[in-house]
Amino acid sequence: MKKYIEQNKERFFEELFSLLRIPSISAKKEHKGDMVRCAERLAELLLEAGADEAGVYPSDGNPVVFGQKIVNPEWKTVLIYGHYDVQPAEPLEKWKSDPFEPEIHDGAIWGRGANDDKGQLFMHVKAFEFMVRTGQLRHNVKFMFEGEEEIGSPSLPAWIRDNKERLAADICLVSDTTMISEKVPSINCGMRGLAYLEVKVTGPNKDLHSGHYGGAVANPINVLCDMISSLIDKEGRITVPGFYDDVVELSDADRAQLSRAPFDLEEYKEFLDIAEVKGEKGYTTMERTGIRPCLDCCGIWGGYTGEGAKTVLPSEAHAKVSMRLVPDQTSEKITELFKKHILSIAPPYVKVEVTPCEGGDGFLIPITSDAYKAASKAMAEVYGIEPVPSRGGGSIAVLAEVQKILGIDPLLMGFGLERDTIHSPNESYLLRQLFAGMESIALFYRYY
Amino acid sequence: MKKYIEQNKERFFEELFSLLRIPSISAKKEHKGDMVRCAERLAELLLEAGADEAGVYPSDGNPVVFGQKIVNPEWKTVLIYGHYDVQPAEPLEKWKSDPFEPEIHDGAIWGRGANDDKGQLFMHVKAFEFMVRTGQLRHNVKFMFEGEEEIGSPSLPAWIRDNKERLAADICLVSDTTMISEKVPSINCGMRGLAYLEVKVTGPNKDLHSGHYGGAVANPINVLCDMISSLIDKEGRITVPGFYDDVVELSDADRAQLSRAPFDLEEYKEFLDIAEVKGEKGYTTMERTGIRPCLDCCGIWGGYTGEGAKTVLPSEAHAKVSMRLVPDQTSEKITELFKKHILSIAPPYVKVEVTPCEGGDGFLIPITSDAYKAASKAMAEVYGIEPVPSRGGGSIAVLAEVQKILGIDPLLMGFGLERDTIHSPNESYLLRQLFAGMESIALFYRYY
Repeated sequence: MKKYIEQNKERFFEELFSLLRIPSISAKKEHKGDMVRCAERLAELLLEAGADEAGVYPSDGNPVVFGQKIVNPEWKTVLIYGHYDVQPAEPLEKWKSDPFEPEIHDGAIWGRGANDDKGQLFMHVKAFEFMVRTGQLRHNVKFMFEGEEEIGSPSLPAWIRDNKERLAADICLVSDTTMISEKVPSINCGMRGLAYLEVKVTGPNKDLHSGHYGGAVANPINVLCDMISSLIDKEGRITVPGFYDDVVELSDADRAQLSRAPFDLEEYKEFLDIAEVKGEKGYTTMERTGIRPCLDCCGIWGGYTGEGAKTVLPSEAHAKVSMRLVPDQTSEKITELFKKHILSIAPPYVKVEVTPCEGGDGFLIPITSDAYKAASKAMAEVYGIEPVPSRGGGSIAVLAEVQKILGIDPLLMGFGLERDTIHSPNESYLLRQLFAGMESIALFYRYY
Repeated sequence: MKKYIEQNKERFFEELFSLLRIPSISAKKEHKGDMVRCAERLAELLLEAGADEAGVYPSDGNPVVFGQKIVNPEWKTVLIYGHYDVQPAEPLEKWKSDPFEPEIHDGAIWGRGANDDKGQLFMHVKAFEFMVRTGQLRHNVKFMFEGEEEIGSPSLPAWIRDNKERLAADICLVSDTTMISEKVPSINCGMRGLAYLEVKVTGPNKDLHSGHYGGAVANPINVLCDMISSLIDKEGRITVPGFYDDVVELSDADRAQLSRAPFDLEEYKEFLDIAEVKGEKGYTTMERTGIRPCLDCCGIWGGYTGEGAKTVLPSEAHAKVSMRLVPDQTSEKITELFKKHILSIAPPYVKVEVTPCEGGDGFLIPITSDAYKAASKAMAEVYGIEPVPSRGGGSIAVLAEVQKILGIDPLLMGFGLERDTIHSPNESYLLRQLFAGMESIALFYRYY
């Protein structure tokens, strides 16, 4: 496939850029039109790549792109999952280029979605094109691209249930994760779940002069800080009662196996420019993001946040809280426990509301399957080294649902790198990884 | 003066509105031009009202309006202080009318600055006009209106020092405070000082994916919450070491005297729609805002604050912290203590910066002075009840400086009411209070 990439590279860039230029931000309602535009463009690309059929299908939310090529009903079927929606680009002032006008320099593509997930799903479209055009395809291939992954895939499970027959396959192949490093390729064999909620604290019914009332009326920002602060104890453990009840504790043998993945703490700290790491006592950094749950405040706001000094005792304060979950925690149960706990610690001098925003369960997949072995062999050939099984800290909420509804395992061949800073300003995707991904996927078809 | 008001009321409104329409927001640099426009309009109004001279004087910051009428050098001189700058109008969506297009309804003027302080300083201009035009003025009157009160009067002390001779007077009369209620008029005999700082917490050098890093890297929002939360203990006391060292503890007799001011806790809670008040243990609500210092988070921000769920572990979090001070705390010392404390509790996994924004000392004034007695007599005549001496929780940073540099006491005849919600959306000023203020000031001249 190397030669095919070399010959078609400029066209590949133009096609991928046509997707990246569409601001398909699922978290913002005003981009509804962009979601449809992006879905339509993607269906077009599938047809051009050689799909027998490809279309844009309505769901309860943003449309789903489905396309397929059935070569021989007797052969194995690969279902490819990806998402065409992207994270918001804020903070915009930190971008060095326009997030929705992709650029190539320093060996990478720069722009929102360059990696997550437009860049990664594009590898599948092009590997498929290569297999079709060179007459090598010995599988049936189905594509399912959704537009709500970044908001927790609220509509896709129902769509999958409604289209169960159409989606029948032997494996669900996904490129939406990172590998440990270019030198240490890895395949994700588990991901964390997510429970994401918004907390609103209301004090007085109007913003007050902090001089006239300060000291006598509870300040909702201070109360919110107290509440957030109380959620993690000195050992780095989450204080929500029942939070750890269902957490699968790994055996020493399992932990030893996972610890084989190389990790350099000094490099990690240098990359992030931090003096020390911080997390749950008794676990390593890799364990803290791989096999342990965590709680993060993803956003907070209240009062006066403009220039200069405004002396206000505000009426409201808000926070967005994300919890990453591990097997066998469920998003539903943790969401309920969190709500109950937050309301129980709300002091009487404020009103507290909790709104669930997003959720999904984590999952684990076996490294003994044929599909895992084929992926491992393919990547070993491209990278010259056998990939390490790893655990991803992130969440792809819908994959646990795929497992449940379709009864097939997901296989996570991710080609992102930490340097790509997905979800952050200046997201990028190395051309080397884009091309190595295409090659690995093409080889996967050969070995699966 | 009642009759004079009745005859001239429409002109009064037009003149006051011409000030209110200018968005003279000192906290925002883009309003520099509005500051000058507002100052010029005010000088014009002083000349029209009968000042011998009035002009706009440069300072290191926004210009100062100074005007005067010297009737007889042998007579007593009243220096009137006020400020023509206003607080930002945010949150704009909570205003029922345009903050800078004043309206009259429900017996009040609505708009930013309707009370604080354009409405209140305007009473002085009109009471002066009345005294001049009716030939009753038996004092020399000087006006000093600044444009930086809402940002802590950074330039005025130097301007006062440079213009010490010009400002020589016997008393500094100020209307920039509230009274307890229309039924319980009061005169402020002390105000709190202020120390206002911004705290910035930096974790990783870029926003991170909360799945990939959550649990292993300190989240600056969570750390900021921990730090803010630790600043006030369970008893409602501020934990900054040395914070209370200089606080003047009132005698039981003094506390008994202050507690004579009527206060209805149920009404207070109902007005604010809160189930309980909260503050320092061992003190009443009135004491907590009058004679005790406090700490409030006036603003907080960090991470994703838009619609929907963005799973980010942000690089930075920010807070604005205001401390109200009482005699004999100084803003300078408390600012230093706070900085030192915040840096000392900053954990090693983040970087913390503290930037002082604003400050000023509190002050006390004697209720035995001729000026206080004259004000008390004047207000008793207008309201039919003797005003109560009270302590204001707010701060007018520059008045402690007036006391020090000019050697004269401020006298705080404030006619605002809590219902006016200054610094908040839908600021207003009751016409009854506007007119009662004018009458009281005119009578003050008679009795002083």
